[in-house]
Amino acid sequence: MLVNGVPYRTIWRRHEGAIAFIDQNLLPHRFAIKEATSVEEMAEAIRHMSIRGAIALGAAAAYGLELAAHRAPDTELPAALHHAATLLKQTRPTAVNIAWATDSVLEATAEATTPQELRHLLRTAVDKLVNAEIERCRRIGEHGMHIIKSLAEKKEGAPVNILTHCNAGWLGCVDYGTALAPIYVAANNGIQLHVWVSETRPRNQGSALTAWELHQHGIPYSVVTDNACGHLIQRGLVDVAFVGADRITRRGDTANKIGTYLKALACHAHGVPFYVAAPTSSFDWSSHAKPGHIPIEERSSDEVHTATGIYQGTLITVRITPEGATAWNPSFDVTPVELLSGFITEHGVFPATIEGLEELAAYAHASS
Amino acid sequence: MLVNGVPYRTIWRRHEGAIAFIDQNLLPHRFAIKEATSVEEMAEAIRHMSIRGAIALGAAAAYGLELAAHRAPDTELPAALHHAATLLKQTRPTAVNIAWATDSVLEATAEATTPQELRHLLRTAVDKLVNAEIERCRRIGEHGMHIIKSLAEKKEGAPVNILTHCNAGWLGCVDYGTALAPIYVAANNGIQLHVWVSETRPRNQGSALTAWELHQHGIPYSVVTDNACGHLIQRGLVDVAFVGADRITRRGDTANKIGTYLKALACHAHGVPFYVAAPTSSFDWSSHAKPGHIPIEERSSDEVHTATGIYQGTLITVRITPEGATAWNPSFDVTPVELLSGFITEHGVFPATIEGLEELAAYAHASS
Repeated sequence: MLVNGVPYRTIWRRHEGAIAFIDQNLLPHRFAIKEATSVEEMAEAIRHMSIRGAIALGAAAAYGLELAAHRAPDTELPAALHHAATLLKQTRPTAVNIAWATDSVLEATAEATTPQELRHLLRTAVDKLVNAEIERCRRIGEHGMHIIKSLAEKKEGAPVNILTHCNAGWLGCVDYGTALAPIYVAANNGIQLHVWVSETRPRNQGSALTAWELHQHGIPYSVVTDNACGHLIQRGLVDVAFVGADRITRRGDTANKIGTYLKALACHAHGVPFYVAAPTSSFDWSSHAKPGHIPIEERSSDEVHTATGIYQGTLITVRITPEGATAWNPSFDVTPVELLSGFITEHGVFPATIEGLEELAAYAHASS
Repeated sequence: MLVNGVPYRTIWRRHEGAIAFIDQNLLPHRFAIKEATSVEEMAEAIRHMSIRGAIALGAAAAYGLELAAHRAPDTELPAALHHAATLLKQTRPTAVNIAWATDSVLEATAEATTPQELRHLLRTAVDKLVNAEIERCRRIGEHGMHIIKSLAEKKEGAPVNILTHCNAGWLGCVDYGTALAPIYVAANNGIQLHVWVSETRPRNQGSALTAWELHQHGIPYSVVTDNACGHLIQRGLVDVAFVGADRITRRGDTANKIGTYLKALACHAHGVPFYVAAPTSSFDWSSHAKPGHIPIEERSSDEVHTATGIYQGTLITVRITPEGATAWNPSFDVTPVELLSGFITEHGVFPATIEGLEELAAYAHASS
């Protein structure tokens, strides 16, 4: 997507042995490109969250293996790749995409008989993995765009008002994003729209990252507090909501960033369609847990006690609560499938019904 | 209520000609008592929001007249009071309590035939007004306490979990508060409870003021993001919700701090009782507006762009959104009466039904 009018990805091969990436720690206040020339540098970038988001992390891990291979002499190639894979997997142990990307790239090189062949297979596998991720997001965007398009036709040229939560944009992917992909594709197709960006306390991914993405791509948007979303929906100022997903159960119940559930409740109360945009890899077909029983990650209460922003050119963290205050910080919530309209995936848009989910499961199993 | 174990009011007569008050601009990071000895100093304290909240502002205005009278020689007394009333009403023109308190204190002095009698009547009227406000809040607390008590009986000693939003505590009143009054009375009666404090972006009255109040009074609480409230309610961690009100229509639709509506939706979805605690003066019996048509105040979008907290001992404001970002900041929302369980007033608890509201209206008209 565009930054200052120039197309970017979050991570890309600048040249052999050099992987460039956007340092997301400095956003939205500073846009800086960094470079990794070794797997150690890539692991460091992942560990310090310069690169974040499931899909972007998978791509970073794949590129990390490529950097390790580039530096290793032929004789040390297998050992270097083994070491690199271990190092990458240790950076963020809960990020399943890192392990998945690492394993699948290495698997693609398993049949190599010479170092030269291994290098060739590895490079091909990395490109294939990264391009497949971009293509999945682009397809989510294409399928979701049709939802926006039909709303635009009903509104006869008035902008379609779209609510989103957290950052499910291209910064967490390689390009396009998930929940924001339909918005980018629609905007690129000349559809008039306006995005309501909920700030997403406590980490403000909405007011920081989503606002920055949309701003750079030239898409009209307004940041609102998470609290304001019920009012917006009640006043008819939201035509449709798009959110991402952390994990989706077999039944369609969707774990996503804390606050998603409240927005879905308000959309449901006012008949506003609410879509989850996610690749089919986000579905856990083996999970039959009920919404109230899906385990939810708790993060440090420091995130609730504080807020981070820029002050006189420096990024600092201020304390909001009184000294000694108690806080609790659940990071995700579960939106029951009954509140959802459908799932926007790389295979199309599937209604949030038993039949829709069965059809989607069949697609997912056929392509896996 | 208690601060560091000592009972306080937000504003009180320290001695003749000296009114003490808690400077709320420094809370929750510093507790400081300031003093006004002239109506000009009182007006300044109101203007700079050292004193805030409808009921506290009314008391401050009444005390402001008393200070003006104290300083004025007998010959200039009527002119001084007239000037003081004008000055006080100009401090925050939309705060109806200031005008109401000023007018009712002056009205009580109308029949005075000597300066001495005027001083006596004025002083009596100020005490009467302030004590009546405290008594109304205390009664709200008593009536609401019974709701908590019956929940406590069902829970057989396990703490009753109460959700509140924004700050409807004693800091905005003279003592007790409105939504927090039942909590204080219940705690003082030895009922086990725990309060979920939603931070209340963008101004964080929850994480700053409500957390401070409860902390000082020794009541167990946890601050959560506004986003977390749906999750808490879904997981059965909330037994009842108490909020204040900015204004309530004839039908019972309640305008309150932005974010109230989302919490009420979630409580309703999970059968959690949701009460509005407010004096009957908050009801506008002439308003028949539908929830979607009640005018809502918009405040500066700067509140959304920023967060304020303490950093290395100094209160500063950091910028969260990217430079040039667009934001919108509606400050209140309307919760339709259908989502409410009842109204806790100084006259008792009235169900949020047509009959309940008619009964309440009759009480209010009888006592006005």
